[in-house]
Amino acid sequence: MKNIVVLGSTGSIGTQTLEVLDMFPDIFQVTGLAAGSNLQKLATQVNKYCPKIVSVGTEDDIPRLKSLIPPDVEIVSGVQGMAEIARMAEVDVVVTSITGTLGLLPTLEAINAGKDIALANKETLVAAGEIVMKLAHEKGVSILPVDSEHSAIFQCLNGEERSRVSRIILTASGGPFRDWSHSQLQSVTVADALKHPNWSMGRKITVDSATMMNKGLEVIEARWLFDVELQEIDVLIHPQSIVHSMVEFTDGSVLAQMGLPDMKLPIQYALTYPERLGNDFPRLNLAASGHLSFAAPRPEIFTCLGLAYEAGRQGGTMPAVLNAANEKAVEMFLNGQIEFLDIPLLIEKVMANHTPVQSPGLDDILGSDMWAREEAESAVGKTII
Amino acid sequence: MKNIVVLGSTGSIGTQTLEVLDMFPDIFQVTGLAAGSNLQKLATQVNKYCPKIVSVGTEDDIPRLKSLIPPDVEIVSGVQGMAEIARMAEVDVVVTSITGTLGLLPTLEAINAGKDIALANKETLVAAGEIVMKLAHEKGVSILPVDSEHSAIFQCLNGEERSRVSRIILTASGGPFRDWSHSQLQSVTVADALKHPNWSMGRKITVDSATMMNKGLEVIEARWLFDVELQEIDVLIHPQSIVHSMVEFTDGSVLAQMGLPDMKLPIQYALTYPERLGNDFPRLNLAASGHLSFAAPRPEIFTCLGLAYEAGRQGGTMPAVLNAANEKAVEMFLNGQIEFLDIPLLIEKVMANHTPVQSPGLDDILGSDMWAREEAESAVGKTII
Repeated sequence: MKNIVVLGSTGSIGTQTLEVLDMFPDIFQVTGLAAGSNLQKLATQVNKYCPKIVSVGTEDDIPRLKSLIPPDVEIVSGVQGMAEIARMAEVDVVVTSITGTLGLLPTLEAINAGKDIALANKETLVAAGEIVMKLAHEKGVSILPVDSEHSAIFQCLNGEERSRVSRIILTASGGPFRDWSHSQLQSVTVADALKHPNWSMGRKITVDSATMMNKGLEVIEARWLFDVELQEIDVLIHPQSIVHSMVEFTDGSVLAQMGLPDMKLPIQYALTYPERLGNDFPRLNLAASGHLSFAAPRPEIFTCLGLAYEAGRQGGTMPAVLNAANEKAVEMFLNGQIEFLDIPLLIEKVMANHTPVQSPGLDDILGSDMWAREEAESAVGKTII
Repeated sequence: MKNIVVLGSTGSIGTQTLEVLDMFPDIFQVTGLAAGSNLQKLATQVNKYCPKIVSVGTEDDIPRLKSLIPPDVEIVSGVQGMAEIARMAEVDVVVTSITGTLGLLPTLEAINAGKDIALANKETLVAAGEIVMKLAHEKGVSILPVDSEHSAIFQCLNGEERSRVSRIILTASGGPFRDWSHSQLQSVTVADALKHPNWSMGRKITVDSATMMNKGLEVIEARWLFDVELQEIDVLIHPQSIVHSMVEFTDGSVLAQMGLPDMKLPIQYALTYPERLGNDFPRLNLAASGHLSFAAPRPEIFTCLGLAYEAGRQGGTMPAVLNAANEKAVEMFLNGQIEFLDIPLLIEKVMANHTPVQSPGLDDILGSDMWAREEAESAVGKTII
C-alpha cells in the first residue's frame, strides 16, 4: 500500500486525485487530508477515506469540523498543520494541490522528510525552484509533475538522456481569448475569463490561462523540473489540448505525449510512476478528432508570457515577485477591483520596483512574496481605485 | 569505431545511409557494401568508402566492377556474397536496405553471426518474422528498425514496459490516391502511382504506398518487432507524415514521435541507438506547419490493407505468400502487364490457393515465396494477358 497525503483535497485537483485513488483501493490509502475553508466537503472526504489526520485553514475552523467527523481523527490547522501531515512517518507520497505560495512550506517539509512529491502546485517551483530541487536532490526524493504539460514532458523523457534534450515545447490552448485583439481584451469580464474552452479548473488557474501567465509559470516550472535553460523552452499554441507537450532531442526527433484533456491521467501517472495501470478513462481517437492545429503565441498581446520569461531570466527572487504580484492581481480582477488588461500592467510595475536577491534563502523568497503582494495592493490603491 | 555493412547500398535507403555515415566519420566505418546491377554507382561508393569487400548482383558483373575499383577490394556476388559480407568478424551493424525477399538469407546469416541489424527490409519480418525474431533473441542481437513508422514506435517505447502497451498506431500518408474513389482508381497509370506526396522512395515501395500494401506489410512487421497481437495494431491516415507513429499505453496515455519526412533521422537513430547525436537536419516547426490531420483508413477501397491483416491472422507461410504475390503483382503493374486495381485481386487469388504451413521452417517460407510468384505469374498469364 502507498500512503498518500492530499494537500488541498477539496479543490479541483484534490477532488480528482481522490477519484483516481478510488480506482485503485488495493494500492493506495489516504493517510492525511488538508483543505482550506470548504469544511463540509472536507468532512465528507474524511468520513469516506478515514485518514488519521486532517488539516483545516485556521484554528477557528477546528471545532466545526470536529462536529462533522469521527472523534478519533486528529485535526490540525494552517500551514503548520499541512506541514505536520506532510512529514508523518508512514506517508509515501504528498500530493500538493494547494493553489499559491501557501504550498511552499509544506512541500519543503515533505521533501525534508523524504516523501515523494506529486506536484500540482506550480508556484512552489516558480518561487523557490532552486531551493526545492536542491533539497529534493539531496534527499533523493522524486518530484513527480501533475500538470498535464509537465507530465507529458516527463513521459517523453522516459528512458532518454537529459543531456540529449535540445528543446522543451510546452503547448498552450491559448485560453478563451486566443484570437482576440488588444482592443477586444479591454472589455473582458470576469465571467468571460472563467470560461476555459478545454479544461475545467479552479478560478485562479483559469484566469491565469486566459492571460497566459499560466504558461509563463509553467515555463519557469519546467526550467527547474527538467534542468533546462529558459531559452530552450518554447510555447506553442495548440487549441485542442490533445498534444500535452513535446520534447525535441539533439538529433531533431520530437516526442509528444497526447491524450484527452483530463487531469486524471497525469494524476494517476504521478501516483503510479514508473508503473502504468489500466483504467477506464475514455481513449483518444485521433481519427474522430480529425485535426490538430498549432500556431506561434502572440507575446505582444499576451504580455504575461514575456513577463514570466523576463522574471526567469533575472532569476533570484524575481520569479517569486512575479508569482505573488500575479496572485494578487488575479484576486483583484476576480473582485472587480481591476480590469483584465491591468493584470500584466500591475505585475510589470511591481517587478520594476524589485531588485532581485540572487541565490535567495527561503526568507528572501517569502519576504519578496509578501512585499510584492503589498506593492501590488498599494499600486492599485494609488492609481486605479 | 562501428563497422557498418550496407546491403543494398545503391538504393534509396542505402544511399541515405551512406550520407548519414558521412556525417560521423569518427564513429562509423564502411566495411562492406552490396548492390544489385547499378555497378557505376557502386564503384563510386567503393572508391569513396574503401570497404574491404563488396558484393554485386551476379557473378557476371564481377569483371566489370573489377575494372572500376582498386584491385585490393575483394568482390563477391549474389545472395551468398551478401551473406559472406554480413557475417564478417569485424562487422558490428548490418544495414539491410535491399528490397524484397532477397534480404532474408543475408539477414539471418548476420544475426547468426551476432551482428546487430538496422532493418530497412520489411519483407524479412513479413515473410519470416517468427524465425528472425527467435534467432535474434537467441543470439542477443538487436533488430533496430529503419522504417520511419517502426523507428517512431521504437522511440516511444524507450524506457517503457512492453507489457503496458495497449495499442500501436501506425500512421499512413494514404499515398497519392488517399481520397480517390474506386472508379477513379480504375484509370491509375504507373506514373500516377510513382508520385508520392511526402516521401521520395524506391519504385516498389512507392507503389506499395499507393496500394497501402506498404502499411499492411508494416502491420505484420510491427507485430513481430514489438511482440504485439495484430488486433492491437491500428492504421491511421495522416496525410502530412509528421507524426510517424504512436503507442497507446494501458493507462490511456499516447506517445508519438514526430519529425519532418526525412529517412535520415530514423537511419541515424538505428545506427547510433541508444545514443542520440546532434545533426544539422532541418527541424520540425509545428507553428509553421499549422495543422496535422487524421482520418480512419478506407479498407473497402484499399483492400491490400485487409489482405495483409488476413495473411497475418492466418499466419504460418501466408504472410510470405502475401508478400511474394505482392512483389510479383507490383512488378507486373510497373511493366504494364496488369492494372493498378489488379494488384489486390491477384494477391487475393494467390492467397486463396495457398494452405499455410504453420510454424514454418526457412525452406517452407522460401518454397511458399517461390510458389506464390509462379502462381501470380500463371494467374495473369491465364486470365489477363
